[in-house]
Amino acid sequence: MNQDYIIPNEWSIIEEGFNSDKVKSSESLFSIGNGAMGQRANFEEEYSGETFQGSYIAGVYYPDKTRVGWWKNGYPEYFAKVLNAPNWIGINVLINDEKLDLHTCKEVSEFKRELNMQEGWLSRSFEAILQNGIKIKVDTKRFLSLELDEIGAINYNVTPLNSDAKITYIPYIDAGITNEDTNWDDQFWDVLEVSKNNKQSYIKSRTMKTHFYTCTFMESRLFVNNVEVAAESKNEQTENTISCAYEQEVKQNQTYTIHKFGGYVVDRDHDKDQLVAAAKTALDKAVSIGFDALLEMQKQSWAQIWNMSDITIEGDVKAQQGIRFNIFQLNQTYLGTDATLNIGPKGFTGEKYGGSTYWDTEAYCIPFYMATKDQSVARTLLEYRYKHLDKAIENAAKLGFTNGAALYPMVTMNGEECHNEWEITFEEIHRNGAIAFAIFNYYRFTDDYSYIPEKGLEVLIGIARFWQQRATFSSHKNKFMILGVTGPNEYENNINNNFYTNYIAKWCINYALENIEIVKTDHISDYIRIKEKVNFSDEELAKWKHVADEMYFPYSEKHNIYLQQDGFLDKELITVADLDKSQRPINQKWSWDRILRSPYIKQADTLQGFYMFEDDFSTEELERHFDFYEPFTVHESSLSPCVHSIQAAKLNRMEQAYTFYLRTSRLDLDDYNHEVEEGLHITSMAGTWMSIVEGFGGMRVHNNTLSFSPKIPKGWKTYSFKVNFRHQVITVNVSQKGTEFTLEGKQAIEILVDGKQVTVSPNK
Amino acid sequence: MNQDYIIPNEWSIIEEGFNSDKVKSSESLFSIGNGAMGQRANFEEEYSGETFQGSYIAGVYYPDKTRVGWWKNGYPEYFAKVLNAPNWIGINVLINDEKLDLHTCKEVSEFKRELNMQEGWLSRSFEAILQNGIKIKVDTKRFLSLELDEIGAINYNVTPLNSDAKITYIPYIDAGITNEDTNWDDQFWDVLEVSKNNKQSYIKSRTMKTHFYTCTFMESRLFVNNVEVAAESKNEQTENTISCAYEQEVKQNQTYTIHKFGGYVVDRDHDKDQLVAAAKTALDKAVSIGFDALLEMQKQSWAQIWNMSDITIEGDVKAQQGIRFNIFQLNQTYLGTDATLNIGPKGFTGEKYGGSTYWDTEAYCIPFYMATKDQSVARTLLEYRYKHLDKAIENAAKLGFTNGAALYPMVTMNGEECHNEWEITFEEIHRNGAIAFAIFNYYRFTDDYSYIPEKGLEVLIGIARFWQQRATFSSHKNKFMILGVTGPNEYENNINNNFYTNYIAKWCINYALENIEIVKTDHISDYIRIKEKVNFSDEELAKWKHVADEMYFPYSEKHNIYLQQDGFLDKELITVADLDKSQRPINQKWSWDRILRSPYIKQADTLQGFYMFEDDFSTEELERHFDFYEPFTVHESSLSPCVHSIQAAKLNRMEQAYTFYLRTSRLDLDDYNHEVEEGLHITSMAGTWMSIVEGFGGMRVHNNTLSFSPKIPKGWKTYSFKVNFRHQVITVNVSQKGTEFTLEGKQAIEILVDGKQVTVSPNK
Repeated sequence: MNQDYIIPNEWSIIEEGFNSDKVKSSESLFSIGNGAMGQRANFEEEYSGETFQGSYIAGVYYPDKTRVGWWKNGYPEYFAKVLNAPNWIGINVLINDEKLDLHTCKEVSEFKRELNMQEGWLSRSFEAILQNGIKIKVDTKRFLSLELDEIGAINYNVTPLNSDAKITYIPYIDAGITNEDTNWDDQFWDVLEVSKNNKQSYIKSRTMKTHFYTCTFMESRLFVNNVEVAAESKNEQTENTISCAYEQEVKQNQTYTIHKFGGYVVDRDHDKDQLVAAAKTALDKAVSIGFDALLEMQKQSWAQIWNMSDITIEGDVKAQQGIRFNIFQLNQTYLGTDATLNIGPKGFTGEKYGGSTYWDTEAYCIPFYMATKDQSVARTLLEYRYKHLDKAIENAAKLGFTNGAALYPMVTMNGEECHNEWEITFEEIHRNGAIAFAIFNYYRFTDDYSYIPEKGLEVLIGIARFWQQRATFSSHKNKFMILGVTGPNEYENNINNNFYTNYIAKWCINYALENIEIVKTDHISDYIRIKEKVNFSDEELAKWKHVADEMYFPYSEKHNIYLQQDGFLDKELITVADLDKSQRPINQKWSWDRILRSPYIKQADTLQGFYMFEDDFSTEELERHFDFYEPFTVHESSLSPCVHSIQAAKLNRMEQAYTFYLRTSRLDLDDYNHEVEEGLHITSMAGTWMSIVEGFGGMRVHNNTLSFSPKIPKGWKTYSFKVNFRHQVITVNVSQKGTEFTLEGKQAIEILVDGKQVTVSPNK
Repeated sequence: MNQDYIIPNEWSIIEEGFNSDKVKSSESLFSIGNGAMGQRANFEEEYSGETFQGSYIAGVYYPDKTRVGWWKNGYPEYFAKVLNAPNWIGINVLINDEKLDLHTCKEVSEFKRELNMQEGWLSRSFEAILQNGIKIKVDTKRFLSLELDEIGAINYNVTPLNSDAKITYIPYIDAGITNEDTNWDDQFWDVLEVSKNNKQSYIKSRTMKTHFYTCTFMESRLFVNNVEVAAESKNEQTENTISCAYEQEVKQNQTYTIHKFGGYVVDRDHDKDQLVAAAKTALDKAVSIGFDALLEMQKQSWAQIWNMSDITIEGDVKAQQGIRFNIFQLNQTYLGTDATLNIGPKGFTGEKYGGSTYWDTEAYCIPFYMATKDQSVARTLLEYRYKHLDKAIENAAKLGFTNGAALYPMVTMNGEECHNEWEITFEEIHRNGAIAFAIFNYYRFTDDYSYIPEKGLEVLIGIARFWQQRATFSSHKNKFMILGVTGPNEYENNINNNFYTNYIAKWCINYALENIEIVKTDHISDYIRIKEKVNFSDEELAKWKHVADEMYFPYSEKHNIYLQQDGFLDKELITVADLDKSQRPINQKWSWDRILRSPYIKQADTLQGFYMFEDDFSTEELERHFDFYEPFTVHESSLSPCVHSIQAAKLNRMEQAYTFYLRTSRLDLDDYNHEVEEGLHITSMAGTWMSIVEGFGGMRVHNNTLSFSPKIPKGWKTYSFKVNFRHQVITVNVSQKGTEFTLEGKQAIEILVDGKQVTVSPNK
């Protein structure tokens, strides 16, 4: 299923040769971002072939009216679209007045693209013969500054190779852009003002409905053979665009260069009436620093990120490239610096799914950010949900829940639900569990209990209330049941007693009860404040406990396993191995009813529960469940292979673990699911990190002790990773011979290695 | 829940007093139709208050692009909208240049509306004082001719009561109409030509996409005190409209009258290039006949219909009014004269649901038409599905079925599926069963076997193939199961082993096998033709049989009942009686997940099976199932009360049967579900007929013998109905004392009455 297109390299993503069929998928793969904005790797110059244009600003979305055939009570008002923002990268290039367009050139050769992950830049070079016979060489480099996160910079060079030529650069900014994800060619931006000030151009625009104000801007510098030329420009302005044309006679083999600086300022950071001034300030600073020095800063910023988050793998270039690509993209998407932002499933690389926050954040991303950044980043992510607690309570109330029960949205931008399939919106309620679990996980890893009395406990109470009310009593089985849900396996809808959902529901209630006791004992003033605010009684807590104690779990005596849901065994149990290959991926080949009645599992479901609550189950139990469920799993969710890799490693099935690792780490690079052109799978990339650190490295935290049980795939010489554990950084180096631990910090720590206690001393 | 607004009357629907809150619901209740077209009871003159404008042409629809949040493989391309057609009834009325508008008058009094069902016309009268102080009396009468089914006629009279007045009638036709059911104010009609020829006006228009061509037309005649005046008109024309203004000075207490003739000609009946000529012909004929003579013809046409289909009830005016309303509306909707048409759930009274054909036709309507019309009408309805067999096979193929398996659409206009909720479109597959059952039912009632070898068997084979392929084998239970369905109870989705679905699936297979044998024996040439065409083998038939023989039915030993579906007993079994009234109707109060996990049943489901296959179950079994399921039934489907009425009558629970009867027969008149303003529930009206004939009358056909077991509600003196049984008409008169049968026909028949054989001789 996978392709072998990207050239293996330890630090770079490389494409060689121009292939118009690959333009859209490469636009995704070579995407760049800096947490505040990001963009697909669209060409600067005109391209008339198939392309998917995308430039995105963090936190800027459009609340599209939800369109469904048949409305259901409780549906959200809108579907939050990831919004293509005004284009600031555009540079039309004329060679003797003919527009450069790789789709219409006579010939394109030496085409190469490189995404340098170590230094955080994207380059492209090629030679082209235009219809007018002029042969040129083009070199470009572009990056989005981490240091000045409103700024992007482009270095674009053209060298005529077979004659002199008149070269015209027409850099422009354009707010007349469209979205891929619009059924009816709607416009989502109002342009407020197009203006110019000396060499700087600005377009002030505002999203419709949400009224996010932005100013898109640019300024350019021109050079011939690296000597700046004080070029005069011819400016043009339309309702939505502004451009400047710089014309230059260039000798054969001379190089004409433009440095274009551009980007966005937004009203999250500036007064909306001062955006043009803010744009001027940003541009003035960037231009005065200049392209080369900005790039130097970029390298340093990325060096800092890599210093903490890099994972090295020796002996397997594709594996090395894969994990770095995952870590790189995660850091391009979210840096933990803005508490209103979160980690969208496609980051800044596409529009699909809409919204910015899914349970992916809590279930997959928090462990990565917790271990590779300061732990405050993870706490910021927890606080994001605390801030949305009121909206989660409102959301639950729409579905008939009362008394402060909270149901967090499946997809959100601002705490409101913005997804509208009933089987997801109303029924994929396990998401609530992951949000509680992240609080537990944060405390387990950081030992920072303060979050719970300050904020977390209110979230835990709202969630526990939801589960207690959501469970119904079956007098038939004399147990509490959770009917009509969609589990993590979205290939089953409206099922009863999903093991994962019931398990996490029970856990959430017990964890809330436990923490109410701890806060009551150890943080009495918080306890009083919270009790007053959310008003719970002992009777209510007793009700919770009754539901948790009497929760039903479907179990098969015959197979000695928990059933994924009540009806699982009634399905026609044909394994994936026996399924005709032509039928896959089933989500592209089959109608929904066929998928639903099949036994095929989209992603870890029961095994997801075994992953999160692994201490509750023996390795033998894990093995039985793995052996039963994995053969029915089609892994058509990007979130599936990582959990399976971790579980396989735990079961000492290193070959299988390695196969799953490759699948998760190179899911996009090798386009396993034939859809990378839509954008990258950002959130699952954190799962890739987990599959090395928790899977191969076997990292866990038990009773305040960091533990490891390192394993290494056969083909690897060594691998290493770092973990920021309670303000000290431990580096783990695993080779075929053994494992070395080093510590950057002040005090020695005790760790467990394969169950044995080991002391690691600082800087040793 | 119900209102008591309509004035009881045996033959008419009457409203007295003007109530602007009731305008929309009365527009539904007073709708008129003639099978070819129909319309809501919108006022002729301008009305600026809340109104729902609707005029509909049979078979004219719009294929709106289906709009869903998340596409699913196999979804239909479009959603067929019931389409508001150009307005031909409009007459603006000026009194001394002030527009008559009941919403802005100083005073409205003596308002009365009557829908005379016996004669097939709608009248309205009122007195009004305009802002200019003129008091007028208005009388209108309007009907859609059954005899000339392209023609409607209006008689509109204004009498100034307190002074002389200048009265201006401005009759118009208008193709610039809108649909209620459009989210985005789309236009669905292109206007091709607006023209005039002497006194006649025409608008030729075409639906977008489907390209149905129509010509809407009008011509008027004017009278003062019944003497025709040769009025000159001032004509106006716009892109979409054409109007003629007739001004007349009228003395106090003189009556100024306009007869307006109008309607539609359509390209189903005429060459599309000849529509204006066809309109002229239709108008010429109508005008030459004149309003009064046309009305006389209308009375005669309705007398013929009533002669065969009337049900009389003595001693209960509301019950009498109810059943006549139901019979009247059914006949307004469908007369069985056009094989391309069918019976839409809202007929010509609203837009909701879209499409024209549901399983309602087979499950509810065919018995009514079969017994009250010539049996050819029922055969025409069967043939409608035969004509769509290829499309049903295509539809099944989209969902992965092969080898000629047929899945009929849930909703259709032309054989293609046009509904797009996966839980309905893909999963409410029991509809296939009703289509096979109707073939059985037709033969049972008419003894006309010829339909089966000629056409029906191919349908039965396609359906049997579907069921065999749709069933999956559970090695766990060693039975065939049908997983992931929605049964008749649409308040459960994606359930497993719905009793009704599994039962009808098994029945369909057995019935197809049985008929293959019969055709093989008795119609060998048909057998050879069919076998060649659909190519079945003995091995295939054996597979079908295996599925039918080993079909699984969930059963509760404890309750001694079949379970509606596998998980029913796991629900929180709180009966409707114990459900807080404020929570109802649950479909307006609850989110979908809450409805799904509740035990509440929208309409007969298991009991629907007991109704259709009653010979397979004992009365004791029926009683147990009725007692178990009815208490959970909220009857929020219009199709529910009728089946429950029939079953209650069978169980000798006449009070309950009567309550259900009133609910079904007066569902719309008394607006039980608070939604009558959206339109009437046409198809369930056939269920009302069944609840008298099959419920109270106990009519069945067993072994070619008509049988009855008449019962009568306590408050009724007598009731009577007629049944066209095999070309003879038997009239059944039931009183508190006993039952009389009379026969119009040539040969005596043997019937069973309460199990005893009785001979009924002709005209006796």
